[in-house]
Amino acid sequence: MKVLILNGPNLNLLGKREPEVYGAESFDDYLKALRAKLPHITIEYYQSNVEGELINQLHKADDHGYEVILFNAGAYTHTSVAIGDAVAGITTPVIEVHISNVMKREEFRHVSYISKHAAGVISGFGLLGYELGMHYLSIR
Amino acid sequence: MKVLILNGPNLNLLGKREPEVYGAESFDDYLKALRAKLPHITIEYYQSNVEGELINQLHKADDHGYEVILFNAGAYTHTSVAIGDAVAGITTPVIEVHISNVMKREEFRHVSYISKHAAGVISGFGLLGYELGMHYLSIR
Amino acid sequence: MKVLILNGPNLNLLGKREPEVYGAESFDDYLKALRAKLPHITIEYYQSNVEGELINQLHKADDHGYEVILFNAGAYTHTSVAIGDAVAGITTPVIEVHISNVMKREEFRHVSYISKHAAGVISGFGLLGYELGMHYLSIR
Amino acid sequence: MKVLILNGPNLNLLGKREPEVYGAESFDDYLKALRAKLPHITIEYYQSNVEGELINQLHKADDHGYEVILFNAGAYTHTSVAIGDAVAGITTPVIEVHISNVMKREEFRHVSYISKHAAGVISGFGLLGYELGMHYLSIR
Amino acid sequence: MKVLILNGPNLNLLGKREPEVYGAESFDDYLKALRAKLPHITIEYYQSNVEGELINQLHKADDHGYEVILFNAGAYTHTSVAIGDAVAGITTPVIEVHISNVMKREEFRHVSYISKHAAGVISGFGLLGYELGMHYLSIR
Amino acid sequence: MKVLILNGPNLNLLGKREPEVYGAESFDDYLKALRAKLPHITIEYYQSNVEGELINQLHKADDHGYEVILFNAGAYTHTSVAIGDAVAGITTPVIEVHISNVMKREEFRHVSYISKHAAGVISGFGLLGYELGMHYLSIR
Amino acid sequence: MKVLILNGPNLNLLGKREPEVYGAESFDDYLKALRAKLPHITIEYYQSNVEGELINQLHKADDHGYEVILFNAGAYTHTSVAIGDAVAGITTPVIEVHISNVMKREEFRHVSYISKHAAGVISGFGLLGYELGMHYLSIR
Amino acid sequence: MKVLILNGPNLNLLGKREPEVYGAESFDDYLKALRAKLPHITIEYYQSNVEGELINQLHKADDHGYEVILFNAGAYTHTSVAIGDAVAGITTPVIEVHISNVMKREEFRHVSYISKHAAGVISGFGLLGYELGMHYLSIR
Amino acid sequence: MKVLILNGPNLNLLGKREPEVYGAESFDDYLKALRAKLPHITIEYYQSNVEGELINQLHKADDHGYEVILFNAGAYTHTSVAIGDAVAGITTPVIEVHISNVMKREEFRHVSYISKHAAGVISGFGLLGYELGMHYLSIR
Amino acid sequence: MKVLILNGPNLNLLGKREPEVYGAESFDDYLKALRAKLPHITIEYYQSNVEGELINQLHKADDHGYEVILFNAGAYTHTSVAIGDAVAGITTPVIEVHISNVMKREEFRHVSYISKHAAGVISGFGLLGYELGMHYLSIR
Amino acid sequence: MKVLILNGPNLNLLGKREPEVYGAESFDDYLKALRAKLPHITIEYYQSNVEGELINQLHKADDHGYEVILFNAGAYTHTSVAIGDAVAGITTPVIEVHISNVMKREEFRHVSYISKHAAGVISGFGLLGYELGMHYLSIR
Amino acid sequence: MKVLILNGPNLNLLGKREPEVYGAESFDDYLKALRAKLPHITIEYYQSNVEGELINQLHKADDHGYEVILFNAGAYTHTSVAIGDAVAGITTPVIEVHISNVMKREEFRHVSYISKHAAGVISGFGLLGYELGMHYLSIR
Repeated sequence: MKVLILNGPNLNLLGKREPEVYGAESFDDYLKALRAKLPHITIEYYQSNVEGELINQLHKADDHGYEVILFNAGAYTHTSVAIGDAVAGITTPVIEVHISNVMKREEFRHVSYISKHAAGVISGFGLLGYELGMHYLSIR
Repeated sequence: MKVLILNGPNLNLLGKREPEVYGAESFDDYLKALRAKLPHITIEYYQSNVEGELINQLHKADDHGYEVILFNAGAYTHTSVAIGDAVAGITTPVIEVHISNVMKREEFRHVSYISKHAAGVISGFGLLGYELGMHYLSIR
Repeated sequence: MKVLILNGPNLNLLGKREPEVYGAESFDDYLKALRAKLPHITIEYYQSNVEGELINQLHKADDHGYEVILFNAGAYTHTSVAIGDAVAGITTPVIEVHISNVMKREEFRHVSYISKHAAGVISGFGLLGYELGMHYLSIR
Repeated sequence: MKVLILNGPNLNLLGKREPEVYGAESFDDYLKALRAKLPHITIEYYQSNVEGELINQLHKADDHGYEVILFNAGAYTHTSVAIGDAVAGITTPVIEVHISNVMKREEFRHVSYISKHAAGVISGFGLLGYELGMHYLSIR
Repeated sequence: MKVLILNGPNLNLLGKREPEVYGAESFDDYLKALRAKLPHITIEYYQSNVEGELINQLHKADDHGYEVILFNAGAYTHTSVAIGDAVAGITTPVIEVHISNVMKREEFRHVSYISKHAAGVISGFGLLGYELGMHYLSIR
Repeated sequence: MKVLILNGPNLNLLGKREPEVYGAESFDDYLKALRAKLPHITIEYYQSNVEGELINQLHKADDHGYEVILFNAGAYTHTSVAIGDAVAGITTPVIEVHISNVMKREEFRHVSYISKHAAGVISGFGLLGYELGMHYLSIR
Repeated sequence: MKVLILNGPNLNLLGKREPEVYGAESFDDYLKALRAKLPHITIEYYQSNVEGELINQLHKADDHGYEVILFNAGAYTHTSVAIGDAVAGITTPVIEVHISNVMKREEFRHVSYISKHAAGVISGFGLLGYELGMHYLSIR
Repeated sequence: MKVLILNGPNLNLLGKREPEVYGAESFDDYLKALRAKLPHITIEYYQSNVEGELINQLHKADDHGYEVILFNAGAYTHTSVAIGDAVAGITTPVIEVHISNVMKREEFRHVSYISKHAAGVISGFGLLGYELGMHYLSIR
Repeated sequence: MKVLILNGPNLNLLGKREPEVYGAESFDDYLKALRAKLPHITIEYYQSNVEGELINQLHKADDHGYEVILFNAGAYTHTSVAIGDAVAGITTPVIEVHISNVMKREEFRHVSYISKHAAGVISGFGLLGYELGMHYLSIR
Repeated sequence: MKVLILNGPNLNLLGKREPEVYGAESFDDYLKALRAKLPHITIEYYQSNVEGELINQLHKADDHGYEVILFNAGAYTHTSVAIGDAVAGITTPVIEVHISNVMKREEFRHVSYISKHAAGVISGFGLLGYELGMHYLSIR
Repeated sequence: MKVLILNGPNLNLLGKREPEVYGAESFDDYLKALRAKLPHITIEYYQSNVEGELINQLHKADDHGYEVILFNAGAYTHTSVAIGDAVAGITTPVIEVHISNVMKREEFRHVSYISKHAAGVISGFGLLGYELGMHYLSIR
Repeated sequence: MKVLILNGPNLNLLGKREPEVYGAESFDDYLKALRAKLPHITIEYYQSNVEGELINQLHKADDHGYEVILFNAGAYTHTSVAIGDAVAGITTPVIEVHISNVMKREEFRHVSYISKHAAGVISGFGLLGYELGMHYLSIR
């Protein structure tokens, strides 16, 4: 079983940027722990701050045989029609994940161009959200 | 460990109403299976179509010692300031659960008066969403 | 042939409240006259000021074998997503009735969460609107 | 007793245009049946696709001694302030009729410049709506 | 000196329609008096309820050698981009006249597609507005 | 002299819920003190979290001979057209009371469906607001 | 016969400020010519850039026995509820005058808090507008 | 104990302007009666139609040792960010008073730039509102 | 092969009206050249300033056997729901043509009630747009 | 004669992504056929999912001597002010092309930041739109 | 070289009012230091809380021969069309200065009626902003 | 002392693109002159048209020890939530610079996602704005 975790802009700062909002753990540390906990799942990881490179990754997903993509598009969630189109254009199911509860934040973060093409949405569970999203594998 | 599942209007129709949106399983059947799967958790359940009775239940939660409330307020999610105030007014953490992905539906379902007081939000995972919400117990 | 007339908030004041808008006849008097005029139709009647109890009644309708529900949801027409969902969730057809012409009144009364799930809409005909709605029986 | 049925743009296509929305019966056939059913009422009929000609007909109504006008202004309902003014400017009462339930359709069809000057509104009853509107004669 | 008074929809009802808003004098009586008072000006007059015929008249104006058009487009003022385009497309100056003060009335009457192409605007002076508009001849 | 204090949703939590916003005194304690201070006024009290039960109480008010109702509808103030209609439908005057200054809070609390039918509005005076509202008795 | 011309902010710059919009004639020169042309009318004149002083002048108008006030409130037209209230609070009729056609300019100039309390509105006639407004004396 | 009553634009017309809205009593008469009734409170009074002079008065308040300012800013309530800033910039508490219930009037009167910096708001109690506002002294 | 070119309001002014926007060539001259260039296509032409007559022409199209209609509805594009309905109600495909690029112009020209029922849209190519639209014949 | 076809995000999926919307032909196949059909035109081609790389290509266009750019910016059409600025900043004319009729789709696709700087717009003609755009060469 | 610093409402409170937003230095102290630092520039200073007096000062600027006006209009920035008109009506260039970064504050402070007539804008640099604005002298 | 000048999309065209808006000087020439004028400051420079690369640069800033970043994000200022997040996520202060006065331009340029995280904003001073921004070093 192969899964892609795809992270968007500024998520490379995790653990450094605004820890009161996003927590103090870096994503690399979390990923190591997650892979250890779920040895039966191959978890690939890609992060970029460039909108178009996230689209490129989504396009490749069908060929790579991922069962599901756990996608935290960060701020592009709220502005990128192009990423929404890419999610719609592939057949691999996508779970939208947000570390913080975006509905508690500024109004411009309440819009998502991804949700309507996503299989499900999880927000506000911190990094645990990625692990919860893996459970999608059991209801496909 | 004690948990409350609190369901709002029309969720008593589950399995009967619009099965293409909400699935064909009744909530009672699901609940039975869930309790069997999670024997170490006491799962209490309450459903009402009356907004004020949901508020009454939320008020009682602090006294009942629930660790968390998994709350699917149904359509009241989008219109009830009073329920949002009740969630804000209690200390028991609340996880907002939606069976369908509300962001895929009409625009008036994109507003939630609960989210900003909730610990987390899960939508679009069908009935599995309630079970996923239980994982909140592990990150308190 | 069995029909339900379902009235929402403040309609129990009919004949007393703002008679220049709603007329001076009480609903009970009207109902007696209507039953006398249409002896071949069993007309059941329910009124409540509580949103959730109106939902409860709608849920029971499929089991009671009503041919049609003549539903005047009063002010809940304009604010209740939950009642709209209940109308959508049952199979009994619903005719939306308003005594006054709501389009002549404040702008917030121009929105209806029921119309898009209703079989038809009649407004501005006073109490006659309920009787006109019965003609739906002839075009089912 | 004399009544005018006044139909606006595209209603001459009835029976041909989008039958899944408007039904397969032509208006001429319906009119013939209606006159046969209501021999005591003189039913005059006028249709035009030209906004100004509908206004001309409304202006003439007071002189012709119609008891009521059953007016389906079609798409002009939603855009014509001038037709609304004409309805306001005459003393003959007007019943606004729509074959389909306009509230189920695009948002720009939810506006009506006629309703606030109309005696009543009936929509979603198909062609039966015209006949129901005739009952206005009994409550004048 | 030749001038055109051009009146739009429902202005043929003047003196009959809502006299508390528009006054009790008919336009014909007013016109007779105006011509008597201003014998040195040739005043031509055209009224139509049809939007397109008003456009036709505007198109002909340049050929007829009018010094100015006093144009009361009635309700088309607020909805007709096409009439606004016609005013913009001719070289004869147009004075926009309203009998009542449109700014005192419904909000949809506060928009004018003509004003931005008009030489001037006069409203709220009753029928006197047409005569005032003639003074434009002295400032060309 | 008889007066009704009518409290809406979540006000039963007073003294417990968000004391930094609503103060630490329970309503029962306040009521006892108020009755002692104003022995010549009979103060009845009713609280409910259910919108429809508040409407029921308002309906009964005319029969009970209250001079005035001091009504804190809580969050229903901002969402309930039905409660606004009930206030409009009775003849007993209603004073709208808010403990906190609602205008200092979220924008959705700036709307009130009650104000336009209320005799007066008092907000931001804490529990003192109820006592101030009693002075309405001296200007009726 | 006594008339007040009341000018608001920046109109003292007339002839100097943006002559392509407002013309090159100063208001003093215009006023001299107007008084010469209309010797039977006593024309008083007041200009201020201070909103409150314009209100003061309006308040004094009833005592001074003006037949009419020709009021060009300049930019305060579009922002001052207080000036609108002052116009509503006096009994002397007010004619709203604008030198340029405000409807041709920025959208924030399309709002007027004065129009709904004014007897009439004239705009786009340059300084002639004041003289035209005097004709109001003949229709009082 | 020293208190300032500060009145804004058009309130000098009280008793003369629109008595059906604001009552027939002049403010001077009211003030005389109030001082007689509350001899232990020194009540200073200032009224101006000029926005900036109201700001000047607010600035001086801290130095004058007022316990509270009862401030009816009239129409400036709805348009003046500068007055709101002045209220925020001083330490003397301000009670916002309106004679009429502003929420019953035009929509542009529903906005207040003062409320969010005010200690409390009273509206719709007529002149009594000023006296009620004095009770703030007992809860400081 | 038979094609209809249908032109709406003000397009009869082509070559005369605002040549800097629409060019200096008259439509008759263009049409003559086009017919000469495409002798194998029968090009019929109709122009009207009357909204309803354009609807009449659309209705007749199915009977006349046109392969396609090249429709420049001019300003009615932006305001006429009725014309949009007519395009939807016929089976002949319609290509929407605009001589100027409407998206470069005022915002109210950015709305089109025709586009969503049209097979394609071409704008900003001047009169060439009609010829380009003919290529639709090759992809039917 | 040299022309650039510039394609934006997700257009590399053509033939694979949502073929019911975009057709089943890949762009490479189409391009091969187009070059064969128009041997006298040098057609260069560039596609990127990265917004900034599309800007880079536009910047280079003036130096490469393209006669025209046929630009399908995909979803960036609706969100990218930066691309619109780039089109405005170069002198090579740009034709905006959309394969589907964007006006038939979601409302957020009705905005274009490119149109107001484009020479022309073609949408809804499928891949033929690129070929039609080449005709711009004949009207430069 | 002569420069005018013009300050609007509440800026006389500087150093006293909300020091966490505006700093603790009074403007007089700052001015003294600035004049000492820039002895070659004659810096005149005017402050008023009255909108109209600021307009008066702007009008006088052209006659006084200022090279530039450094204008902090305070809250009038966001509400005064009249001040914006005055800036537009004079030829002396105006630099808009804000001590705090207005874009970080309430939304109603994001509008400026001055910016579009100003030569430049500086905000968020505290009192240094005035000094920075002086550099405009070097690029005139 | 080390400073970063960071320029966004299309600013590489400076001197070539729309010189009437942005001036005729290229940024390289300006930079050379600036470095010569301020030899004690190390000025690094980076420009990209790719949103994500600008984010990458911002992320690196804390490590590079810049005292301040002078950031002209061009059109991304108005659309990029992700860039705003990046500015918020780093500790190096950012000064937002715009060459032209963005408030004089289209409305979509009046929004900035950067301002609320910036230390200050300078616009409309042409290239001088960068130099002015350097003065921030003296008030840190």
